[in-house]
Amino acid sequence: MTSVDPRRMANAIRFLSMDAIERAGEGHPGTPLGAADITTALFTRHLKYDAADPLWFDRDRFVQSNGHGSMLLYSLLNLTGYRKISLDEIKRFRVLGSHCAGHPEHDLAAGIEVTTGLLGQGIANAAGMALAEAFLNSWFGPGIVDHRTYALVGDGCLHEGVGQEVISLAGHLGLGKLTFLWDDNRITDDGAIDLALSDDMAARFRASNWHVQTVDGHDPEAISTAIEAAKADPRPSMIACTTVIGRGIPRVEGQRAAHGGRIFKEDTNAARKTLEWPHEPFEFPDDILSAWRAAGRRSAAEHEAWRGRVAALDPEKRAVFDRVREGRLPEGWDATLLEYQRNAAESRHADHGYKISGDIVDLLAKAIPELISGAPDLEGATLHKRSLSAFTAADKGGRYVHYGVREHVMGSMLNGMAAHGGVLPVGVTYLVFSDYNRAPMRMSALMGLPVKYVFSHDSIGIGTNGPTHQPVEFLASFRAMPNMLVLRPADAVEAAECWRIAIEHKTGPCALMFSRQPLESARTDGVGENRSSKGAYVLAEAEGGPRRVTILATGSEVSVALKARKTLQADGVPTAVVSMPCWELFEQQDEAYRRQVIDRGTVRVAVEAAVRQGWERYVGEDGGFVGMSGFGASGSVPDLYEHYGITAAKVVDEVRARL
Amino acid sequence: MTSVDPRRMANAIRFLSMDAIERAGEGHPGTPLGAADITTALFTRHLKYDAADPLWFDRDRFVQSNGHGSMLLYSLLNLTGYRKISLDEIKRFRVLGSHCAGHPEHDLAAGIEVTTGLLGQGIANAAGMALAEAFLNSWFGPGIVDHRTYALVGDGCLHEGVGQEVISLAGHLGLGKLTFLWDDNRITDDGAIDLALSDDMAARFRASNWHVQTVDGHDPEAISTAIEAAKADPRPSMIACTTVIGRGIPRVEGQRAAHGGRIFKEDTNAARKTLEWPHEPFEFPDDILSAWRAAGRRSAAEHEAWRGRVAALDPEKRAVFDRVREGRLPEGWDATLLEYQRNAAESRHADHGYKISGDIVDLLAKAIPELISGAPDLEGATLHKRSLSAFTAADKGGRYVHYGVREHVMGSMLNGMAAHGGVLPVGVTYLVFSDYNRAPMRMSALMGLPVKYVFSHDSIGIGTNGPTHQPVEFLASFRAMPNMLVLRPADAVEAAECWRIAIEHKTGPCALMFSRQPLESARTDGVGENRSSKGAYVLAEAEGGPRRVTILATGSEVSVALKARKTLQADGVPTAVVSMPCWELFEQQDEAYRRQVIDRGTVRVAVEAAVRQGWERYVGEDGGFVGMSGFGASGSVPDLYEHYGITAAKVVDEVRARL
Repeated sequence: MTSVDPRRMANAIRFLSMDAIERAGEGHPGTPLGAADITTALFTRHLKYDAADPLWFDRDRFVQSNGHGSMLLYSLLNLTGYRKISLDEIKRFRVLGSHCAGHPEHDLAAGIEVTTGLLGQGIANAAGMALAEAFLNSWFGPGIVDHRTYALVGDGCLHEGVGQEVISLAGHLGLGKLTFLWDDNRITDDGAIDLALSDDMAARFRASNWHVQTVDGHDPEAISTAIEAAKADPRPSMIACTTVIGRGIPRVEGQRAAHGGRIFKEDTNAARKTLEWPHEPFEFPDDILSAWRAAGRRSAAEHEAWRGRVAALDPEKRAVFDRVREGRLPEGWDATLLEYQRNAAESRHADHGYKISGDIVDLLAKAIPELISGAPDLEGATLHKRSLSAFTAADKGGRYVHYGVREHVMGSMLNGMAAHGGVLPVGVTYLVFSDYNRAPMRMSALMGLPVKYVFSHDSIGIGTNGPTHQPVEFLASFRAMPNMLVLRPADAVEAAECWRIAIEHKTGPCALMFSRQPLESARTDGVGENRSSKGAYVLAEAEGGPRRVTILATGSEVSVALKARKTLQADGVPTAVVSMPCWELFEQQDEAYRRQVIDRGTVRVAVEAAVRQGWERYVGEDGGFVGMSGFGASGSVPDLYEHYGITAAKVVDEVRARL
Repeated sequence: MTSVDPRRMANAIRFLSMDAIERAGEGHPGTPLGAADITTALFTRHLKYDAADPLWFDRDRFVQSNGHGSMLLYSLLNLTGYRKISLDEIKRFRVLGSHCAGHPEHDLAAGIEVTTGLLGQGIANAAGMALAEAFLNSWFGPGIVDHRTYALVGDGCLHEGVGQEVISLAGHLGLGKLTFLWDDNRITDDGAIDLALSDDMAARFRASNWHVQTVDGHDPEAISTAIEAAKADPRPSMIACTTVIGRGIPRVEGQRAAHGGRIFKEDTNAARKTLEWPHEPFEFPDDILSAWRAAGRRSAAEHEAWRGRVAALDPEKRAVFDRVREGRLPEGWDATLLEYQRNAAESRHADHGYKISGDIVDLLAKAIPELISGAPDLEGATLHKRSLSAFTAADKGGRYVHYGVREHVMGSMLNGMAAHGGVLPVGVTYLVFSDYNRAPMRMSALMGLPVKYVFSHDSIGIGTNGPTHQPVEFLASFRAMPNMLVLRPADAVEAAECWRIAIEHKTGPCALMFSRQPLESARTDGVGENRSSKGAYVLAEAEGGPRRVTILATGSEVSVALKARKTLQADGVPTAVVSMPCWELFEQQDEAYRRQVIDRGTVRVAVEAAVRQGWERYVGEDGGFVGMSGFGASGSVPDLYEHYGITAAKVVDEVRARL
């Protein structure tokens, strides 16, 4: 607590933000000016954080979901003393290389929990953080993990479907430490909110079991009292803070122009007069700056006490706690995986792709107690729950989340869990449904978060459910996404290898693709080198002479390639089959390896039950491709493969036409 | 009306469905058995339709949004007498080539309004249909267009974010002729609904201004009375019909197993006993069949009267009505477009890409009175409203929809509008936000609906808003989507050409990509041949000798290519620039043309401010590519192009390395 008038402290945010925006020539002034009082109340009286140690694991999480108003967050971080968000950086707002980018970009050391800007994502991330906290609290106890998650929410976040999914699911799961501070300014980019919204938003939240309050968003006492009440209530809380967008600049106050419009020197001058702020840009009176800096260390004692409690933990428990918060895997986590892989190789194990993945994830879940799984209303169809119990409002120690039929919020919550740390999030659904959570997948990739996306039913091989449920363009579309590792294993052995790659991959998300139909055994070598880790490798070398043909394949089509090879070899054509579970990893290999695996001097044909796009990179302009050229159809799997010509005979034809 | 017991009529649906599902060996029995009574009440007493003329323009629309229960729809269509859904087809349920696919597939002549199966899409399609009806009703009057839209809704449709967006927006827009019949069976694939839902759904709908009723979903009188009340209320209506999933098969009734589980001969036998249905599979007693057939013609007199009213229309108005319902463009629609194109060529018009598109759409909107536009909360940033007035609850003659910050429902409503017919739907947003409406875009492509998607801010050229808002993988991801025409014009002339292609394209959707930054003039030839219609063409041929170099480019990078060409030509290297606004159309050209435009014997380099994937098809394995290899960053546009090396100098380097 401080004796400085909180309204003056809020004005420090306003001027730092508006001066930076004016200097940059653009940057959404509406939110920092409108929500300055809300966040001042939060950061000076409630938020548990320590600007001197942004990585403090038990800090409260704060997400600015309306990321376009990023100068608000930068102002808060600068004033409270986060080192990476210096005044110099703020002066370089929106300049290439600055920490103060157009939208906040995930950088825990800077105090930026997640990248926001795609509306609705941030509040869903916050729900994921609250879930991770609740789970770890249940595991390690309240002395060790016990923090709240706050999100500043704009109108757009609540319009978006993903935001609506959050409301329903967070209410259902009873995420009581989650608080939304809604910047209710009745203005969006188009203008007055009632152009596109008539909802009674309080009633909407109440229908999903939220605690709802309405306050004057410019009254620090009222906001603070509401936050207290939110803390005291066991439900998630929504505080509707009535605000005036762009507050402080007379020309734009309460106007559409405040949302994203440009402001000028005259505007900041007028604001200085209105708000009685005689200070130069980027300068602050000592009392205000001291008060902000003190706020940045307001939880220092609490932090210290927490350190003491962690140090006093039972050593074994402490080791586990340290391990999970540092994101290290448990020793020997892969023992059962290796055993599975060895057995699969020896027994020539064949099974449905999704079931193979389910078997593996069950082993991993047993070995990795921080693994949290879930498949939106597809538990039975994807088999990734198994021995896990459900995470519920009553039992927050569960590790399987029943998301309902809500893929989008799953993806966004996985990002929140990964950004929070301490858990290893896995999300499962059918591959076509990834169109519903593509946006958060892109955000995982952009933030470099190690989320494991598992997709079953990965081709026309799903059969009779038909083209709505048959992905054909999805492999290409995810291979196009930067920093997304797309893994499509051919059999149980490769599945084990790919899962190992995924679990050990820390710098971004993975998308693991599994068939609905059975995967035949392709690999009989046991647990030596992880051959999938090179992205592509020679599964079966040509025999009886120098290689004349290279057939490339992934996933369920590797068995098609092997059959084609058999025919060609029988005809005396030395043919190799290259299994290519991960293009991205293959691209990281040196040229010598790549040229050896995919010999350009040979006839090259690729086979994959998907569209051709991208395969020219590996088969060349004149290479062959056996796959799909349009959407699929409803029919039995054998009928479909025959109808679309994804057969060994067709592969052989394509090869022969080029010999 | 009929004297046959409606419960027996509903049982005809149950047995037709369960016998077909048992025969097929799979197929989601829960919905047809659970919702048979609801749809019997609707189809025998309320729905305005004529099985003898499925294309009757003023029919009520019925969408089964829970498409997995497709046998319900097929049973209804068969029993009421839709010719394409014969018993033979039903016996081939889920067999390749049958009209009775796993999920219903858009086929107006068969009585299937839209393809459903991705949950939430169908109810949003229905909202789009209701919007189209309201607009045409306001235009042509209630005697000519005056029908209702009903959707059968499963739990999943209401979980999904898009479904929640529908509730908010339909309530806001006052789509009073829209009625949802919610099959409230408290069971989803995972099991009991309360695994993942605690919402008070009635309160949720009321919060968005819906008329809400709750009835026993197995009581035909109660359902019928509720539908009457829905018709009488000016708000959109939700009727929560409490049902028992799988009703009629004792083993699965009310159980999770009914949702998608397999049923067997013993089950259908048991149902025959329980429901006192002694008839053989696919056989019906005469009274029931007659009653159903009569229901199929229940609106025949109304249909005839409507024909009379249309025939009696003022001839000029009638011509317009016939034109719009047949989807023909008005005569001379392109006059102002051609003028724009001519002027643009002559004046070397340069402007921001999105503004060019906004200018063109304004011309088109004036020339095509059925064009409906809208950009989710980006009216000011995309400039596609202009002279259009808003479609609102009070004025349903408006042609610009303020969707709020809800991209997903926009996409799905555009599909509903296109499937309804009579309007030409255009949807606008930033390219990155397409991740929010990718699922409906895929559905447009799958259904072959002529929706025009306009995307502005199509590359890192958006600048300081940073990587969240900078598409890099989106061009590739949409080029991978079958039946999606991706158009990325280089300047105002190509923009006019591409818009002409889009407007005239009837067999699927288009995605038009426009830059935020200015597009320089590239074309000075006027309004002769539509050069963009071949997908790619030689914009500037090599000079001073046979072509040695081909530079390929699209959109804003065509000007980069032209600058590189200038340098190379000045150095005596005969260099051509190929502009490639649409890969899909280029693929449709004959090989001679393709080889002439992209001469394989030349050094080939492509430049596009996006990822490389797919370009190997045109530049070959050893060709050059200048573009992005990862996500972008926040910075000024010149800084970004320089930082990522998307410059004429880099193109020249790539060429020289290969000369």
